[in-house]
Amino acid sequence: MLALNFVASSSDYLLGIDIGGTAIKAAAFSCEGKPLSTRTEPTLDGRLKDGRPAWAVAVRQLVADFAGELAAPARHIGLSAPGLAAADQRSIASLPNRLAGIEGFDWADWLGQRVLVLNDAHAALLGEVWQGAALACRNVVMLTLGTGVGGAAMVDGALLRGHFGRAGHLGHVTVDYSGKTASIFGMPGALEVAIGNYNVGERSGGRFADSSDLLKAAGEGDGAAQAVWEQSVQALGCAIGSFINAFDPEVVVLGGGVAGAGEALWLPLKRVLAKVEWRPFGEGVPVVPAKLGGWAGTFGAAWEAMRAASGAAACR
Amino acid sequence: MLALNFVASSSDYLLGIDIGGTAIKAAAFSCEGKPLSTRTEPTLDGRLKDGRPAWAVAVRQLVADFAGELAAPARHIGLSAPGLAAADQRSIASLPNRLAGIEGFDWADWLGQRVLVLNDAHAALLGEVWQGAALACRNVVMLTLGTGVGGAAMVDGALLRGHFGRAGHLGHVTVDYSGKTASIFGMPGALEVAIGNYNVGERSGGRFADSSDLLKAAGEGDGAAQAVWEQSVQALGCAIGSFINAFDPEVVVLGGGVAGAGEALWLPLKRVLAKVEWRPFGEGVPVVPAKLGGWAGTFGAAWEAMRAASGAAACR
Repeated sequence: MLALNFVASSSDYLLGIDIGGTAIKAAAFSCEGKPLSTRTEPTLDGRLKDGRPAWAVAVRQLVADFAGELAAPARHIGLSAPGLAAADQRSIASLPNRLAGIEGFDWADWLGQRVLVLNDAHAALLGEVWQGAALACRNVVMLTLGTGVGGAAMVDGALLRGHFGRAGHLGHVTVDYSGKTASIFGMPGALEVAIGNYNVGERSGGRFADSSDLLKAAGEGDGAAQAVWEQSVQALGCAIGSFINAFDPEVVVLGGGVAGAGEALWLPLKRVLAKVEWRPFGEGVPVVPAKLGGWAGTFGAAWEAMRAASGAAACR
Repeated sequence: MLALNFVASSSDYLLGIDIGGTAIKAAAFSCEGKPLSTRTEPTLDGRLKDGRPAWAVAVRQLVADFAGELAAPARHIGLSAPGLAAADQRSIASLPNRLAGIEGFDWADWLGQRVLVLNDAHAALLGEVWQGAALACRNVVMLTLGTGVGGAAMVDGALLRGHFGRAGHLGHVTVDYSGKTASIFGMPGALEVAIGNYNVGERSGGRFADSSDLLKAAGEGDGAAQAVWEQSVQALGCAIGSFINAFDPEVVVLGGGVAGAGEALWLPLKRVLAKVEWRPFGEGVPVVPAKLGGWAGTFGAAWEAMRAASGAAACR
């Protein structure tokens, strides 16, 4: 009797790489989506190694390390990073003030094989659709509530990219057009001004450094902290209701540190949505926490690289 | 020598029908898009004729009149109306409080031939892409500034419909989350609250009935009127800048009566956008007036009906 071999051939794996501000995460998946192995390296933004950006050298090493571990090069590589992906998806076309050298850096040339490059928020949404909180959905809005607010949208089964690849920058949508503070892209009263970690200090008159400080005080009955947080959740709820009217999703996914605040976020957010959401057929749109945490980008990058390859030959 | 016949066979025409609150507009086009003939009938919302809604009877008569005039039934019929189009595009699935009887009204059954039904703002955008201000564009945001504010978006070549067909309701996106007034769908400080004609009275402390009254006074140096209008344009500019960040269009098209206000709109709007728009590659996104006026919906409905039919057989 033949011994059936259920283990995928070693050449059949996808690699998803996500370059963040502090860490580079990489994960290998079987073509069916099973996570096989993960690795993390520091980004070392701004440093050089052998005359090259340290992040570039680290990514090349990570790819080699996986090839060693899994005894073959990856069949498909997807790479996500902040900034606007170029139309040919070979590089990041625009990312001012961070990861110097990444603009126009051709990853296929550097790694010696095809690499699909995409925006990190786009990748995170795709990851959640592939194996996360928006599993198999065709209409999705995702917000990542962290230092700033990242966003992405999928409508009618297609991830929205737009003319320059900037579609889905939902943290830079106004929720207060007469607001004095603008987001880094110049939008007054942007959503990330209202709930991003980076300006909790400004919102609280300098009393708190970030959302967890603010929420701790609010939880202990600090009325001023509660009022600040209430405003933030009101802004977030109105923004989500607005995105529902603009994109008509079947699910809204919230990721990032602030989304992990538990009932302090979810209970008041539900109350706001009950007031401001348009519910033409009775039910509201489910608003749910992300499932893949900081690894969502690696999932989405790997999946998109496989999907972008021609159908039948995508995975042998 | 044979006489070449350059006139389209009489059976080769498309019909676009747009049902509005006061008028039903219909236009016939050659398959190449040349307008052949137009007709208009009053909607008579709420009235019956032979026990049927007057608008239904009027549409059937219009279709028959075109068939008589052009000596054949239309090859493809598209019909646009307010409300959410059903997923099968045979009817309007939701439109509370207006055009009683239209929810679920099956137009193919009523007219005895296939009819493609779509939302009126979606149709207007498609019309402007087919033959108007967004000719051949793949990434478009359109706002119709009238009684309220209608909207639609096309991204990466696809009109956004969404889970229930409500994508693009951009008049119901907040620009002021602490605003006291809500749009008809419950969104506080919605864009249409800030610039829709319907609440110029509220915005001006009861002094003006609509935007043209307000603009006339502002033009004559009325400081209070100027201040109200300035706020409206600030809100509109921030909303447009936000939609640019959310959808990444190559053009933004403004239609409706308020868009016809001339320099009183366009000059201050340009100033606001110069401040709030994110311009990663230097240039701003062109913001342009619609070209097809009140007929855009008939163009888009006719075009979409042809596009929805199978490729080669779409027009013989």
